[in-house]
Formats: sequence, structure tokens, C-alpha cells
Amino acid sequence: MHRGLKLTNLNVEIVCVGNELLIGKTLNTNAHWLAKRITSLGLNVKRVTVVGDNLEDISAAIRETVQRAPYFVIVTGGLGPTFDDMTLEGVAKGLGRELEDNREALDMVKKKYQHYVSEGRIEKYEMTPHRTKMARLPKGATPLLNPVGTAPGVLVIEGDVKIVMLPGVPSEMMAIFDESIAPILKEISGDLMFFEASLDVKEMPESQLAPLIDDVMRDNPYVYIKSHPQASEKVPHLELHLSTTSNDLKTARQRISRVIIQISEIIQEKGGKVKPIKS
Amino acid sequence: MHRGLKLTNLNVEIVCVGNELLIGKTLNTNAHWLAKRITSLGLNVKRVTVVGDNLEDISAAIRETVQRAPYFVIVTGGLGPTFDDMTLEGVAKGLGRELEDNREALDMVKKKYQHYVSEGRIEKYEMTPHRTKMARLPKGATPLLNPVGTAPGVLVIEGDVKIVMLPGVPSEMMAIFDESIAPILKEISGDLMFFEASLDVKEMPESQLAPLIDDVMRDNPYVYIKSHPQASEKVPHLELHLSTTSNDLKTARQRISRVIIQISEIIQEKGGKVKPIKS
Repeated sequence: MHRGLKLTNLNVEIVCVGNELLIGKTLNTNAHWLAKRITSLGLNVKRVTVVGDNLEDISAAIRETVQRAPYFVIVTGGLGPTFDDMTLEGVAKGLGRELEDNREALDMVKKKYQHYVSEGRIEKYEMTPHRTKMARLPKGATPLLNPVGTAPGVLVIEGDVKIVMLPGVPSEMMAIFDESIAPILKEISGDLMFFEASLDVKEMPESQLAPLIDDVMRDNPYVYIKSHPQASEKVPHLELHLSTTSNDLKTARQRISRVIIQISEIIQEKGGKVKPIKS
Repeated sequence: MHRGLKLTNLNVEIVCVGNELLIGKTLNTNAHWLAKRITSLGLNVKRVTVVGDNLEDISAAIRETVQRAPYFVIVTGGLGPTFDDMTLEGVAKGLGRELEDNREALDMVKKKYQHYVSEGRIEKYEMTPHRTKMARLPKGATPLLNPVGTAPGVLVIEGDVKIVMLPGVPSEMMAIFDESIAPILKEISGDLMFFEASLDVKEMPESQLAPLIDDVMRDNPYVYIKSHPQASEKVPHLELHLSTTSNDLKTARQRISRVIIQISEIIQEKGGKVKPIKS
């Protein structure tokens, strides 16, 4: 039996910070983008936690996440200059560390403002408390260059857990992830890659398909099959999603092809209609 | 000081179940929709947790969430007939309860299949194990009618915490929420409502705005002000979001208007540009 098969044991957790996510103002596209990227790099996103701009909630989420001992924790949001940007303080509190001015981070922030002046975006600048705040990091942290914005990303290592903080602005989050984090994750996962395919299935209710999926998965232990019912229509309609993780493209393709052939035959025998969905 | 002001003390947590959310296949629009609806009903979404189709992960998330003692927990996904629909079992395990066949739920499921036959969607049906599974609920649970799909929603009460399970298909989730849950939440929150407005601010960096927000919030303790930087441009550009919770429309409007006037004056004095964003 291979039910609930784990894709890999390289677990990553995502923690998103921001009231805008909890009042339904902002759709959490950051978690979606990160989950897709991390999965495609061969790692396993185990949990996403969303909390508000509140010191207790951030520190509790960090403490609980670190206790589950994932390889990596990606934290997004709350790194900016305003009073409710509390992620650095929250992570420090969650790990029982002090905050301290980080010279390297301070240099990064100063250089950004110098650059903004040279570009004419601002006339002049002073290093006000709201600006130096972005460079007050948990003790022992390393700042990560932000190629497109002001607040640096931050890396903290706690035992075997690496915690990375990224800004909530999507373009900044993506740029730091791609530049500083993706290469580390790739290194960890080696050649592991995630492969997927989808089938469109009509005229077969999910409850009739369920035992057929059981049979095919029993016969194909490395492929995970999940049915996604589409919005209610007169005719039953669902997407069948197939996925596998492998370090070998050929093996992965063979596994997926075998399942497509097997399940398509069974569905058609039972009177359903099935066709591949081009991605 | 009114920093990190809680909107209300009526906390709700959302737990979303589904591998598709953790591999980045599906954007979590369910959490977004629920957060918006729950906030607009005057309650406070405190945390969103996303876990995969895995018994241990679901039961752990439920156990931890119930320990934080929110008024309500909304769980989405994993109520269907396939092997990896594990929410009922996961919640039962998390609460230390047994699963049992629920007669009322079984009637709801049977009636659905009778209806599908009468509509010609399916030719005939038997109550297979995969179908009766949708009616095996945690002991003491109450099924909630699903007006648009097959799997009933489920309500379980654990001490002071109400736990509601809804299907992951958005149209079914929304229909059960609106029919069975929204009226209960409205009852709890009384006349409390959430009010918001947004300003578009240009030519003022967030780090310059930050101390101004501090001043205005100190003077307007019931309004929460949050700045959202827009994607990096040559000119600093951000959205300023103002919100308040009140049981009186007039009071809420006065609070928000006062902040709009105050902060707009300050921004313009300092050389920034500001205008309202129509919602």
C-alpha cells in the first residue's frame, strides 16, 4: 500500500505574515508561487501557515514550525520600515534570540538609498530609525541582497533548520528566492525533479472513479493520483492529476505514461470519457 | 499606544487540506474568499493553516488549532469519496473521537444519488464503501446540507470551539458556508462590521511615510493603517489601506474620513501625492 506517499522527505514549510492575507484583501499568490517553485526543485512543501502582523502570532508560528524540523522555512512579509513590519522581531522572539544592528545589512540598505538619490527617486536621505530597523536582524543572521527593493532578505540557521525571510512584495520575494535560495534548495535535492500530467474525465462520477484509482495506484506505487471535481455540471466532470518525483526524466515519463494508459483503458471500459489536458 | 490593534476578539481559524495547494497546482482562493466573508461579518481571522492529504498532518493541525481556542474553525477540502479524502478521519483523530456512520448524513448522500439518477446524470447507483465514507463522521457530529454537491458539510463542537468542515470545491464550500455558517457567525458578532478604504500614494517612499503613519494612528486609535508598496517603479508608489470595525456605520465612516483628511494633508505637506482608490 502506498497511500499518502510522500513525494520526498526534504520538507519545507512556508510562513506568510500579513493582516492583508487574513482580511481577504490580498490573495496569497506568494505561497502559491513558492509552493510551485519549491516542488519543481524536488522538495516537499509540508505546511503553509498564515499569521497577521502581530508579534505573538509570528513568534508562536516560528517556534512551532522550527519544532517540526523541516529542512527549510520560508517566511514572507513584514520586513519593511513601518510599525507593523514585525517579522524580524517575531522570528528573533520565536528563536529566543536578541535583535542586533547588522553591519552588512545596514550597508545594503544605505547603498539602496544612495542609489535612489542618484536615480532622482528621492532628493536626499537620512538613516532614520524606520530605515535602520530593516537592518536590525536576529543575532547570528546573514542578510541576503535584495536586487529589486530596499529591505534585505535574511537567513538564520537554528540547529538543522534554515529560516529565510523574504519581503512580501512579490517581485522582491521572487528575486531574492531565485538568486539566493533556489541554488541552495537545488543543491539539497540533487537531481530530484517533480513531474506531472493531467487527464480530463467526463461522464464518470468521482465516487465511481475512486475504487479504480485505488487499483491503479496499488499497481503504480510511485505515482500519486488525485481527482479534482470540476464545478457541478449536469455531466460529472473532473481533472485527474498524476505526479511523481524522480531523479531521472526517462523513468518519470515511463511511470506517468503507464498510469495514463492503464487508467484511460479502465475509464473507457466503464463508459467514461477521458483525454489528456495539455499544460 | 494602539499598535497591532485587534479588530475583534472573535477569532476564527481556517485550515485548508489538499496536496494541490502545497505543490502550487491550485491557488488558495478558498482561504481568500472565507477570510473576506468572515472579516466582513465582523469576526477576526487569526490564522490560516494549509496541510496535505495526510492523516498525521491533518490531525496535528486540528489538535493545535483547537488548543488555541478560537470561536470557530473552518476546515476546507478532503470530504469526498477518494482514498486521499481524509479530513473526517483526520479531524476525528485530532479530537480523539471515533468515526461512526451518521444516519442523517447517509440520508443526505443517498438522496443526492437518487436525484442524480432522476436527472439522468447517472444510470443507477449502489451505496458503495466509497460513497458511504462521506457519511462516516466523527462521533457527535452534525451533517450540513450541501445544496450543490454530494458530500455534506460537517459541524463538530469540541468544548467552546465549533469546527466546520466544508468541501474543497469552491461552489460547494461557498454554498454551505452561506447557508449554514454565515448566519451563526452573524449571530455571534452582532452588529459588528468591518469598514475599509484605500488611498493611492505617490512620490513618498514607505520609509518616509512610516513615522507619519505612527503619528496618525496614535491620534486615531480605532483605525488600522497599513501601507502596501506597489511593484518597484522609478517613483515610489504605495497603497495605504485604512480599516476599522464598528457596530455603527456612521461612527465607522467618521473614523475613516478623519484619517483620510489627516494623512492626506500630511503627505501633501511633505511633497507626496495622494488620492482615494475607488473600490
